[in-house]
Amino acid sequence: MKLYGYWRSTSSYRLRIALALKGVVPEQVPVHLVRNGGEQRGEAYRRINPQGRVPSLALDDGRVLIQSPAIIEYLEEVYPDPPLLPADPVARARVRGVAAIIGCDIHPLHNVGPLDHLRRDLGRPEEEVGAWIERWIAEGFAAVEALIDGEGYCFGSGPGLADVYLVPQVYAARRFAVPLEPFPKIRRAAALAEAHPAFQAAHPSRQPDAE
Amino acid sequence: MKLYGYWRSTSSYRLRIALALKGVVPEQVPVHLVRNGGEQRGEAYRRINPQGRVPSLALDDGRVLIQSPAIIEYLEEVYPDPPLLPADPVARARVRGVAAIIGCDIHPLHNVGPLDHLRRDLGRPEEEVGAWIERWIAEGFAAVEALIDGEGYCFGSGPGLADVYLVPQVYAARRFAVPLEPFPKIRRAAALAEAHPAFQAAHPSRQPDAE
Repeated sequence: MKLYGYWRSTSSYRLRIALALKGVVPEQVPVHLVRNGGEQRGEAYRRINPQGRVPSLALDDGRVLIQSPAIIEYLEEVYPDPPLLPADPVARARVRGVAAIIGCDIHPLHNVGPLDHLRRDLGRPEEEVGAWIERWIAEGFAAVEALIDGEGYCFGSGPGLADVYLVPQVYAARRFAVPLEPFPKIRRAAALAEAHPAFQAAHPSRQPDAE
Repeated sequence: MKLYGYWRSTSSYRLRIALALKGVVPEQVPVHLVRNGGEQRGEAYRRINPQGRVPSLALDDGRVLIQSPAIIEYLEEVYPDPPLLPADPVARARVRGVAAIIGCDIHPLHNVGPLDHLRRDLGRPEEEVGAWIERWIAEGFAAVEALIDGEGYCFGSGPGLADVYLVPQVYAARRFAVPLEPFPKIRRAAALAEAHPAFQAAHPSRQPDAE
């Protein structure tokens, strides 16, 4: 199995956590998102992933999966133990709902493409770009804060899908200097998960392409 | 079951299609996204959905599910027939991958919040807002076009999860006057799905709050 990713990419980090929790250790193939105008946009990588984004997961038979939400659901189906989702359908929807707030309503808005567009195509100054990033993280985190448990991980006593999404989003929030003081439940759940060996192994600083 | 939504909201439309395909008919409760500064942001609605977004699905026992990707997976689990996903895990990941391109990389960027921010907070003129919308739809659709089947629905001979996401996104593309000529496979799959009774029942123009 080969994981095409980038050390600091939120969605690559998310997928690395899921793989580590499942005990799956793929070969890592770094794709540099900045160098050479972005290696993910190059012809060689587009033959692997036509969307030209990371992460991608190439299975041992050569088939390639793309999009971290789809790949993580695949991992949950093929490697059910330990589970990232509870058994009850309503409980599963609650966990997936928090993952979707992060995966759909926060992360895509501060992804590399939109930020490049604001800076280069629209010529916006850094203070406007920073306010844009902070707005979507703060609004999304306010919803997450209202929805997760008051103790333990996001939901319950073990790490699950919501934690897989939350920890890289907290990492991105720190990187962009977004204040986390208003979100004590998020800070508690993230701190707990960050101490877990699988989350530690997946940390950007511990990847082969870390700078 | 109560569906809180808005006739023209892409994610409400998506959820209505999934419900109709499953043969589930909820009571509809319109939430007007523009009137009164946006009813979804009001205190009454936030008691139902702390994120203040549509859609939400209230079950008969009062529990509320949020986020269309999470709710659609719930429907797939609780109402497995007809399935929206194939049985094979890799095939499921491919279908979910296309859904995620639309649900994460296209729709969130032209959602009401970011467009309001570009217009009001950053004071961008309509031509820049239009170019922003077109860029994300065109880039995402180029990836979808490369990934879906060359005949029939997005994947195979029956409607599935990718079609549930695609048809509302094509509706939004038309509304924003984004050219669809470069995407013949998308146009074919969308036209086929649009003729299906479940997709027709879910169309924005046929909802109680349509304007």
